[in-house]
Amino acid sequence: MTHNLQQKYEDGFDITTQQHPDPTSVGIVTPKKVHFGQVLTLESGQTLDGFDLMVETYGELNADKSNAILICHALSGSHHAAGYHNLDDKKAGWWDNFIGKGRAIDTSRFFVVSLNNIGSCYGSTGPTSINPDTNEAFGADFPVVTVKDWVTTQAMLADYFGITMWHAVVGGSMGGMQALRWAIDFPKRLKKCVIIASTPKLSAQNIAFNEVARQSILSDPDFADGFYLKQAKTPKRGLILARMVGHITYLTDEAMKVKFGRDLKTGKLKFNYDVDFEVESYLRYQGEQFSTRFDANSYLLMTKALDYFDPARGVVANYENLSDHDALTQALAHTSCQFLVVSFTTDWRFPPERSQEIVNALISNAKPVSYINIDAPYGHDSFLFDIPLYRQAVFNFLYN
Amino acid sequence: MTHNLQQKYEDGFDITTQQHPDPTSVGIVTPKKVHFGQVLTLESGQTLDGFDLMVETYGELNADKSNAILICHALSGSHHAAGYHNLDDKKAGWWDNFIGKGRAIDTSRFFVVSLNNIGSCYGSTGPTSINPDTNEAFGADFPVVTVKDWVTTQAMLADYFGITMWHAVVGGSMGGMQALRWAIDFPKRLKKCVIIASTPKLSAQNIAFNEVARQSILSDPDFADGFYLKQAKTPKRGLILARMVGHITYLTDEAMKVKFGRDLKTGKLKFNYDVDFEVESYLRYQGEQFSTRFDANSYLLMTKALDYFDPARGVVANYENLSDHDALTQALAHTSCQFLVVSFTTDWRFPPERSQEIVNALISNAKPVSYINIDAPYGHDSFLFDIPLYRQAVFNFLYN
Repeated sequence: MTHNLQQKYEDGFDITTQQHPDPTSVGIVTPKKVHFGQVLTLESGQTLDGFDLMVETYGELNADKSNAILICHALSGSHHAAGYHNLDDKKAGWWDNFIGKGRAIDTSRFFVVSLNNIGSCYGSTGPTSINPDTNEAFGADFPVVTVKDWVTTQAMLADYFGITMWHAVVGGSMGGMQALRWAIDFPKRLKKCVIIASTPKLSAQNIAFNEVARQSILSDPDFADGFYLKQAKTPKRGLILARMVGHITYLTDEAMKVKFGRDLKTGKLKFNYDVDFEVESYLRYQGEQFSTRFDANSYLLMTKALDYFDPARGVVANYENLSDHDALTQALAHTSCQFLVVSFTTDWRFPPERSQEIVNALISNAKPVSYINIDAPYGHDSFLFDIPLYRQAVFNFLYN
Repeated sequence: MTHNLQQKYEDGFDITTQQHPDPTSVGIVTPKKVHFGQVLTLESGQTLDGFDLMVETYGELNADKSNAILICHALSGSHHAAGYHNLDDKKAGWWDNFIGKGRAIDTSRFFVVSLNNIGSCYGSTGPTSINPDTNEAFGADFPVVTVKDWVTTQAMLADYFGITMWHAVVGGSMGGMQALRWAIDFPKRLKKCVIIASTPKLSAQNIAFNEVARQSILSDPDFADGFYLKQAKTPKRGLILARMVGHITYLTDEAMKVKFGRDLKTGKLKFNYDVDFEVESYLRYQGEQFSTRFDANSYLLMTKALDYFDPARGVVANYENLSDHDALTQALAHTSCQFLVVSFTTDWRFPPERSQEIVNALISNAKPVSYINIDAPYGHDSFLFDIPLYRQAVFNFLYN
């Protein structure tokens, strides 16, 4: 049995919510596009002459607007974090196992806001959007955006909803960087900050992997200097390679061993360059799928935002001359929220030590911080799994 | 002061050796091409109608031909393991710090043979060689070769020199696989086996990284289905990407941090896709250099040889149904040499645990094995460094 719910916000932000057969699901959700007419000056100095954000919300905003939680997405994520777009929809939002009634992020208590960041390709303003100057897609003309820029636009979205203070800002991986940046840039606008499987900044190895992904795309002849849409091309080969290399870093050697071992796809060696092993087939499939759903310019831009992330930049004078710990400690000096930091034992992309750098800098500042290192075998991808201890830690932290 | 030495072997294998100013260097060496006229049937069932091997030798073969050591190279290696090709040559062979008078592999005691494997691109028969059937380069028609095939051709090279038993077969990484295969396939033909920074077989993650490298090459439009030479093309973009991703796995996150940190190439963020960080510049340079010296078909073939390596294949009945340990133990049951296995603490490509699998299987067979796990910060690349404890371990093991 399903029925429709209408939630109407003062400025016409309608959410049509159908109930889903699973009573703990947020149900059928409809994303909405919110337009911002202001000129946005980015950290690079470039400007956007207005922009759109694609948004989904789950649960109900209470009267004093004190129960709102912002979800920040990772590299390839979108606004569609929970629920289904229709009753035939087989695939729920990317964090559906965490967002719902009684779930880690409990929509029976909280009003959850999930958006697609600018620069991405799921409906918010990005490289595939029309550039008003040319009446064609921005393509390579879309400016490089940063985590700081995302947080700025998210604060504008909070204003749009009339939310002066988030109950919490929550994110995993690149989403964790946004949550951390929120605590620094808008210390009075969030009560709690949940930073999951993240890092205060990328290591040289992290940057190196991103650079391989970027070069895969940039060197694909169909990239056409970033104006592939104009030429009706897609740098599909580059996107496939970028995703393949990225995907390896999300898993672990052990998880891949358990999942694929050295199993042969057809039971025998082929002595050619077709697929021999299951893991090759899996990676090719992942790459192929990704290349049909993601925009190459957005991928470039997202990896640069990752590389550039440094909480001290623009906050701490001469931060380049300080130790990593001192720079981060000074960057976090004026935060006033409670922190939960979560890492995963087998994450080698952003290993527990990187989360502990954040924890240590908060401790040096005598800030309230809880930290848990979850024993999970799924590598960096662990943050997307519903692991009991992890779920409970997030639920408890958000509850009060 | 330099002078010429002439070493003449009965079958016309001349080595012209000039002395180098460094008295411990093997000096000026001249590679020689050795032709084998026999039809070679490969593990795939395909055949080569004769083949050439490029060879260098260092030191002198003793009267009873009992002091010969075979060096097996890794993925991108060649026959040029030690010394210089002329007095102006700035760059010594790839393992020069290990091979020389008084060095770990002591050329004042041993006669060292170093060859380029078939399928490679440094002068031995491979994809860039002329296919006698077409009078054009083999290109993609060159058959996939395996570690077993290399060992077969190396045994033919031993016959050519009249060496019935190697004092030792030594190799790092893929070279270690060849040394291991020697112990299995020709148990009576080597006294000692040195397996460095290697693995009994690739993990799913290892295969995954190789597959990214292969797809980089295969999807480069200039690859031209492997017949790029015929079209006067080079799949340069693919080779660059393949090397970049490979190179990351040879180093460690920590080593990259020490070497590059997050240092900016020009001191400021560029907000575009040019090089921002030193590590990007380094990787691009490595890729670019490699693309000028390596053949794409050879790279494909080498990575397949790595993926396919399994000491139990062709040796142990129904090995697929045995545990990894049992299959390897049975594969090693008939070896009769002494083993030295060396791993490096920070090697995450072939971590110490993988070397220990070889050690454990040898112990289960009550075979003589020494094992040392060297504390070194350079990751997989450690095997190329002259680390005192490592050098001493190899020197001592080979000495008697």
